[in-house]
Amino acid sequence: MIKEIEKQTGAAFKLKKGQKLKVIDPKGEQVSDMVLFNAEDTREKISSGKTLDFEESILITKGNFLWSNRGRKMMHILEDTNGRNDFLLAPCSPETFQIMYNNPEYHPSCFENLYTNLKPFGIEPDDVPTAFNIFMNVQFQPDGKLSVDPPLSKAGDYVLFEAQMDLLVALTACSAEDSNGGSFKPIHYELVE
Amino acid sequence: MIKEIEKQTGAAFKLKKGQKLKVIDPKGEQVSDMVLFNAEDTREKISSGKTLDFEESILITKGNFLWSNRGRKMMHILEDTNGRNDFLLAPCSPETFQIMYNNPEYHPSCFENLYTNLKPFGIEPDDVPTAFNIFMNVQFQPDGKLSVDPPLSKAGDYVLFEAQMDLLVALTACSAEDSNGGSFKPIHYELVE
Repeated sequence: MIKEIEKQTGAAFKLKKGQKLKVIDPKGEQVSDMVLFNAEDTREKISSGKTLDFEESILITKGNFLWSNRGRKMMHILEDTNGRNDFLLAPCSPETFQIMYNNPEYHPSCFENLYTNLKPFGIEPDDVPTAFNIFMNVQFQPDGKLSVDPPLSKAGDYVLFEAQMDLLVALTACSAEDSNGGSFKPIHYELVE
Repeated sequence: MIKEIEKQTGAAFKLKKGQKLKVIDPKGEQVSDMVLFNAEDTREKISSGKTLDFEESILITKGNFLWSNRGRKMMHILEDTNGRNDFLLAPCSPETFQIMYNNPEYHPSCFENLYTNLKPFGIEPDDVPTAFNIFMNVQFQPDGKLSVDPPLSKAGDYVLFEAQMDLLVALTACSAEDSNGGSFKPIHYELVE
């Protein structure tokens, strides 16, 4: 059964080892930030540093694993119809809009949508790690300069993950204008046995 | 007064806001992993994701700031005579040597040297974030592939940081063969008022 994450919101749920998670961009050009925790001990969580290190690549897609801060495999990426994801940049947060967008007003953010959905599982805001940013199109130049470009994902593109341990998962439909081609859309996800 | 971190070891110490820290490669081709915590509340710590996001670059050097998971400035880089540092890869750990080096034996690691030196300050191993890897020469290709090359640093090269808040700092002399041109050397550091 496909579930919908409404625009600028999030969700959190458990996933058993061996279960598969399909994250779908139903309308195209929409990012979904994902964080992972070991369901049995949430001090173990997804790590960008460990993943880029062990996968020896900035770009993480089909065939790659997502690793934890304890150097263990959390997810295997079985399929990726779009092929572009980001694992460099932190989830958009209130400071993102204050500092990068020069917007002092309240603005929904992936960080808020992650920690509010994770709160019932005992996760504090400070415990939210750098997310795996599905469909996010961050381009890098040889001099290291980064730009956040509109996602390349088309309606129906998806990434299929297989859990390598029992997991607590949080997902968002990203709230940052620049990351999503200027408009906010939902994200769909499905748990597949 | 210059202090020495012996090869394959580490150190931890406090730094007051406005104080400067000079990290020196005394012999050349030696990496030093650095992690930072807010001295008043160690749940706030250095964040690769926030730093790459707010500095809009993979390569962090003179003029850049190091940011926390709460989106606040922790350090300003005032000088960098070498100019190449890494903020992508996690500190070398027991799993690094098991998985990347296929070495099942005990091997000293930056991760161990960080958490053992941070233990007296109440920091647990799971709390150690991705480090700012001073002098580490990680090259990236347009397709995202990463390689760990010998450091470009020469004897006497240094990076000078200015604390933007009261900090708890941990530093290592890195223990990974590939990161240090195949030999292990000390790191020097100096607190400058």
